[in-house]
Amino acid sequence: MPSSLRDKALACRDAASSIASLDTAAKRCLLLAMATALAADATLVLDANAKDMAAARANGTSDAMLDRLRLDASRIAGIVRAIREVATLPDPVGVTTRCETRPNGITVERVRIPLGVIAMIYEARPNVTADAAALCLMAGNAVILRGGSDAMHSNIAIATALRRALAASGIPEAALTLIDDPRRETMVELLQLTDIVDLAIPRGGEGLIRFVAEHARVPVIKHYKGVCHLYVDRDADPVLALRLLVDGKTSRPGVCNALETLLVHKDMASTFLPHAIEKLRRLGVEIRGDEVTRALADDVAPASEDDYAAEFLDLIIAVRVVDTLDEAIAHIRRYGSDHTEVIATRDPVAADSFVRAIRSAVVMVNASSRFSDGGELGLGTEIGISTTRLHAYGPMGAESLTVERFVVRGEGQVRHPASERVDDASGQ
Amino acid sequence: MPSSLRDKALACRDAASSIASLDTAAKRCLLLAMATALAADATLVLDANAKDMAAARANGTSDAMLDRLRLDASRIAGIVRAIREVATLPDPVGVTTRCETRPNGITVERVRIPLGVIAMIYEARPNVTADAAALCLMAGNAVILRGGSDAMHSNIAIATALRRALAASGIPEAALTLIDDPRRETMVELLQLTDIVDLAIPRGGEGLIRFVAEHARVPVIKHYKGVCHLYVDRDADPVLALRLLVDGKTSRPGVCNALETLLVHKDMASTFLPHAIEKLRRLGVEIRGDEVTRALADDVAPASEDDYAAEFLDLIIAVRVVDTLDEAIAHIRRYGSDHTEVIATRDPVAADSFVRAIRSAVVMVNASSRFSDGGELGLGTEIGISTTRLHAYGPMGAESLTVERFVVRGEGQVRHPASERVDDASGQ
Repeated sequence: MPSSLRDKALACRDAASSIASLDTAAKRCLLLAMATALAADATLVLDANAKDMAAARANGTSDAMLDRLRLDASRIAGIVRAIREVATLPDPVGVTTRCETRPNGITVERVRIPLGVIAMIYEARPNVTADAAALCLMAGNAVILRGGSDAMHSNIAIATALRRALAASGIPEAALTLIDDPRRETMVELLQLTDIVDLAIPRGGEGLIRFVAEHARVPVIKHYKGVCHLYVDRDADPVLALRLLVDGKTSRPGVCNALETLLVHKDMASTFLPHAIEKLRRLGVEIRGDEVTRALADDVAPASEDDYAAEFLDLIIAVRVVDTLDEAIAHIRRYGSDHTEVIATRDPVAADSFVRAIRSAVVMVNASSRFSDGGELGLGTEIGISTTRLHAYGPMGAESLTVERFVVRGEGQVRHPASERVDDASGQ
Repeated sequence: MPSSLRDKALACRDAASSIASLDTAAKRCLLLAMATALAADATLVLDANAKDMAAARANGTSDAMLDRLRLDASRIAGIVRAIREVATLPDPVGVTTRCETRPNGITVERVRIPLGVIAMIYEARPNVTADAAALCLMAGNAVILRGGSDAMHSNIAIATALRRALAASGIPEAALTLIDDPRRETMVELLQLTDIVDLAIPRGGEGLIRFVAEHARVPVIKHYKGVCHLYVDRDADPVLALRLLVDGKTSRPGVCNALETLLVHKDMASTFLPHAIEKLRRLGVEIRGDEVTRALADDVAPASEDDYAAEFLDLIIAVRVVDTLDEAIAHIRRYGSDHTEVIATRDPVAADSFVRAIRSAVVMVNASSRFSDGGELGLGTEIGISTTRLHAYGPMGAESLTVERFVVRGEGQVRHPASERVDDASGQ
């Protein structure tokens, strides 16, 4: 077995061509075998997870982190089910997205191929080991998994089960490579294997993502944070706006598509805000507002600059009253994180202006920010949410793990039929 | 006027939203105004270019480099014409690529938006200043241009003309920002402005591209080199294959889509190779071959490992006889640069095997490698050819300077209608 990181990564790269050449049916069978293997190893995985949990508790790990780390029979069943669901997704590989015949008779197709080798860098959640592996493989890629050291026993147990399914399917196990060396310098080395790794996707806290972005020499698609805004326009339906506000802020405040800031047009402020603040408070939400907001409701703490830039991930919301749609847009440009923004309005012109001016990955008109999720948007599942405006922007599904290339067919066409050599002076 | 690089880049980023909000007609008008302004300044540009040429000659610059640097009336007319052609391209911005209504009634569109701020890093060719600016602006992006110091006077003169057209069109001149500080550390600083620059595209020699890749913290799409292969299959039409060989190697040997290596199936070798070698030699091509090739023709120098990995950019070709299609594929995987590979064959099964197994950006069946070019493949023009398997792979046109994002429209749909808070434990 190869020992050094580079050897492991090279073996993974070699295995990538085996995965890339599988047809859809073979990949579906592989994923179903992976699901079955993981289900069969549930006890082993739970034992391994118990070791991780004990070590984490001894290290004084926070309850929130412990909960992310924890597996039980129901969670393992959920992971197994998720792999089976990925096996039902449309296969993006080999899809012809466009085809054109040029005047000289050559046909030019754009066809999706896998990216190659994807490095997933993540933290405490062991489910990512299986989720990411399934989606990468379904899109024809090999995958190198580098999870957090807290979850190492769990990750090894999960990867061992999944690799057994690869081997039983006649595919090199290296197509799913877990890095079990927890040192940061090993992660840095992985992030600099520019001749092997085609894409690194970090998933976790802002600290991890910044570390990856800083040290990577391979391409990285990152997702820093979600500072999502709801703008309630002068023409908004107040009942609809309140529904979006409550769902966006309270249905799951700890996730990246939860609302962090409420912007309200001044013409709506006196009718909408007192009622909205009362409702939020009843749901346990702390309000931090600007002067106008504070004048409209009792006991609203002042919102600082930091509050408007914050991803609270908690039952806290920053509120500001704006004079115009443009002021709302300017606020979002200044404080937003390019993740998801919502406008509540009955005015189609305002909606269009908002959609055009906002450059976030997901922009919503009269729908909850909580739909900013691969499953909800029709991708089946997601491997992350990109706030990098390159390759993929927003929730990334299987298709985002492929790229279009050119396939040209001709009947002997050449560019210079006279076969004369052309002056090389001015480019190609 | 802002003086520091960061201030200039920030002004460019602010101007990006002005460009992004222009409709297609306004962008076409802007580009036509840019073309007219450049034509009007032809004499000034030629004077500036004369200074660059004099300095370059005094520095002992090579003839090839001097030719890249040189402008004359005809070349300026060509640059002006190229800008006008970009103005006729389809506008990728605002295009809805997909639309789906989800079961809950929300509609999910994928709509193209500009990337934002693009940094072009290039060397001696002053035409890139205009070409890149036109294509970036047509795709709704602001652009920061950092050309080689050899062409600085020329670039300043061209940018001055183009910026006048921006100003006359009511668009902030900063949308087209030329960095006139030739120091490498300034380029490095530019490449690390992660909060401003959305994409860096280096164009030039391998040294420049490796330097950019090494120092960039912003995303980079690179194109190292084109080691393009022609594989003549056992079932190839020899006349067709020879036509592709001659066009690919001799029509313009100094460009990246020229052929560098010829692979011939052993069943074709004795009939095809002697004739092909004779033809190439008559066209002035030096042949470097493996043992089998050398046995079939007189005076063929032995090909080294380096020859098979080389981008000769000259009238030299490496030749190898392979036993099977798979051996040809393995050779290309080992020595190729992911740019463009060609198979000549009459066998559709062999063609499909080749297309599936080869992961290069462009793969051709019975067509010349020289078609691997944005114009020839129907993109109108190109800003470069990506050999990075992310975002864009192969020739990059205007569309590659945009990204798809999500636009969602609803009627008040929420994810958790009961508005109950959900356990935050397991992800989003």
